[in-house]
Amino acid sequence: MLSEIDPFYAMEINRLAHRLKGRAVIHMEYGQPSTGAPKAALDVAHRVLDSDAMGYWESPTLQEALAAHYRRRYGLDVAPERFVLTCGASPALVLALTAFFSPGDRVVLARPGYVAYRNVLKALHLEPVEIACGPETRYQLAASHIAALDPAPQGVIVASPANPTGTIIPDADLKAIADVSRARGATVISDEIYHGLSYAGPAATMLAYDPGAFVIGSFSKYFSMVAWRLGWLLAPEDKAERARAFCGNMFLTAPSLSQHAGVAALDATEELEKHVDVYRTNRDLLLKALPRLGLSRIAPPDGAFYVYVDVGHLTDDSLAFCKELLEDTGVAIAPGIDFDPVEGHRFIRISFAVSTAETEEAIRRLEPWFRARAR
Amino acid sequence: MLSEIDPFYAMEINRLAHRLKGRAVIHMEYGQPSTGAPKAALDVAHRVLDSDAMGYWESPTLQEALAAHYRRRYGLDVAPERFVLTCGASPALVLALTAFFSPGDRVVLARPGYVAYRNVLKALHLEPVEIACGPETRYQLAASHIAALDPAPQGVIVASPANPTGTIIPDADLKAIADVSRARGATVISDEIYHGLSYAGPAATMLAYDPGAFVIGSFSKYFSMVAWRLGWLLAPEDKAERARAFCGNMFLTAPSLSQHAGVAALDATEELEKHVDVYRTNRDLLLKALPRLGLSRIAPPDGAFYVYVDVGHLTDDSLAFCKELLEDTGVAIAPGIDFDPVEGHRFIRISFAVSTAETEEAIRRLEPWFRARAR
Repeated sequence: MLSEIDPFYAMEINRLAHRLKGRAVIHMEYGQPSTGAPKAALDVAHRVLDSDAMGYWESPTLQEALAAHYRRRYGLDVAPERFVLTCGASPALVLALTAFFSPGDRVVLARPGYVAYRNVLKALHLEPVEIACGPETRYQLAASHIAALDPAPQGVIVASPANPTGTIIPDADLKAIADVSRARGATVISDEIYHGLSYAGPAATMLAYDPGAFVIGSFSKYFSMVAWRLGWLLAPEDKAERARAFCGNMFLTAPSLSQHAGVAALDATEELEKHVDVYRTNRDLLLKALPRLGLSRIAPPDGAFYVYVDVGHLTDDSLAFCKELLEDTGVAIAPGIDFDPVEGHRFIRISFAVSTAETEEAIRRLEPWFRARAR
Repeated sequence: MLSEIDPFYAMEINRLAHRLKGRAVIHMEYGQPSTGAPKAALDVAHRVLDSDAMGYWESPTLQEALAAHYRRRYGLDVAPERFVLTCGASPALVLALTAFFSPGDRVVLARPGYVAYRNVLKALHLEPVEIACGPETRYQLAASHIAALDPAPQGVIVASPANPTGTIIPDADLKAIADVSRARGATVISDEIYHGLSYAGPAATMLAYDPGAFVIGSFSKYFSMVAWRLGWLLAPEDKAERARAFCGNMFLTAPSLSQHAGVAALDATEELEKHVDVYRTNRDLLLKALPRLGLSRIAPPDGAFYVYVDVGHLTDDSLAFCKELLEDTGVAIAPGIDFDPVEGHRFIRISFAVSTAETEEAIRRLEPWFRARAR
């Protein structure tokens, strides 16, 4: 039987936004920086374009640079060959699920969550086991959820900071998830693509608590290299060879140019931290403004660049709500139904990976619109 | 149950080649041009690096340019939105097999063939049905093979020009395959990544005979943009939307820079045809030299840049044979077992996607080596 997947409604909003006439649209519907790659990465790319014919290649230099990055950021020693380089984080997830799971396997994940987790699981004939997660666990999976499942799941997907909420799983809770997953025989996949983007202390890596976990990373968020399509699957020591063999057959190698540039991006800390400063300012502006708009039930935005807001007092159809908001104000945001098919009809996700001027202008436009509705 | 896949031995040869001391290695083990992207594509890339922050994007301009390319090359009208742009041809195959097939489905394909077909089918829990194909059908699948299968397969993979043989399926035979597949209810996936590289008349597209076929294309071969990771899945009209939805979830978009550059590459005919001239010269040199080396049982190399050679009179272990050849001569070639687990122990694949000077030097080194063995 063919698998059925859910649509991605933020794309519908994006299409509508591009058709909108009149004033400039502020794009807060997608989770992508608009800042472009770091200058050092661009310089390398120019040089490589002029000097390298670029054949199939997995850069050992980038693997070593990633190992150094993990030593620096987390204090962990990881063998460079454990980094399987992929065309972005998305194929890294497909790779882990294909090489280490079988059709029918049950994989537990939080709802709300990134729509592609659910869809990719279904596409690969795995069974998503979605757990409704609310404010009591920061909208995140908890060890108790996994402990309570009968039968035990074969896999666990965690994401910290998460999409759409931006919430971070505290270290102790991450360790508890690692412990209960191990005890129940479930393999953990930890999506850590938003690491580096946190506003209330750094996010821990699942690797610190579970050496058998698969960790997914990306150059698309903190490193601001969105459509360079470069990510990695950090595989457990004894599974890297199999992961790489599957990767070679399913995807071949990542873009050579991006691999060269990625090495430079890993060192562009000064420039990249400035982006984080912008996000922090935008986040502060939004957190101050949203209560004035009557929006006070929001997930704690510890990291990433999202605010997930409960608008249940205003609508029970978040897609229609986002369309109306877009048409009236020119501000594009994502409907909660992308992330939560059950409760998402009363949520919206605002991405603040835009400039501070855009954030300010968005607030200016949103304020009268929400005030008018609150009456 | 986890799927098991076969290793890719050409990579082992490549690794050995890189460790070889002494004289320069001639790399004829991989199927990739060493010429780099067309100049016009590089110019565009430099410009885009300087001006575009590059977000997630599927280029409508590239889709239209591909539609124009199909009109020009095949005289076919294809709606631009039927081109689902992917990070190379490999994920396009994964995409078609995931979105339109189910675990347990039987997919027929020729043996010898590209190792990843078999491996990706197994990775996705589909059942590869390999048909032993010999000189009588140019080592290609024929309609009679498909007609004889009981039960009927759900899918058919054809590749023309093929890897590892370079053979092209004549138009009438391609039509017959389309007809019998339709009659038996099997969906055709046509791998056409070597189109543009043919030496005895152009290869027809399966699309001319089967509008319901999935066609896979790539910028990595004729267009000489190997590790730019850009390809496409050309989906049937009524299946493009589903293919795109799966692509968005499993892979997101193709590299933006490559999409910009790809538009320019589609027009770089003059430069690209010069590469084809080089391959033609190399092919002629090899076809003249091989009989002198005692190698006369070869598949007709109609296209691509491979010669698939029967060395059964010299070895029954093609991997050991290739290793010895590499160590003795510094010429790296691929063992047949990569392409045919049953008969491949007595075949080798020589890629002539190198310079003519390298081809001449390779022949100079191979001649005494083979002469010595023939005694």
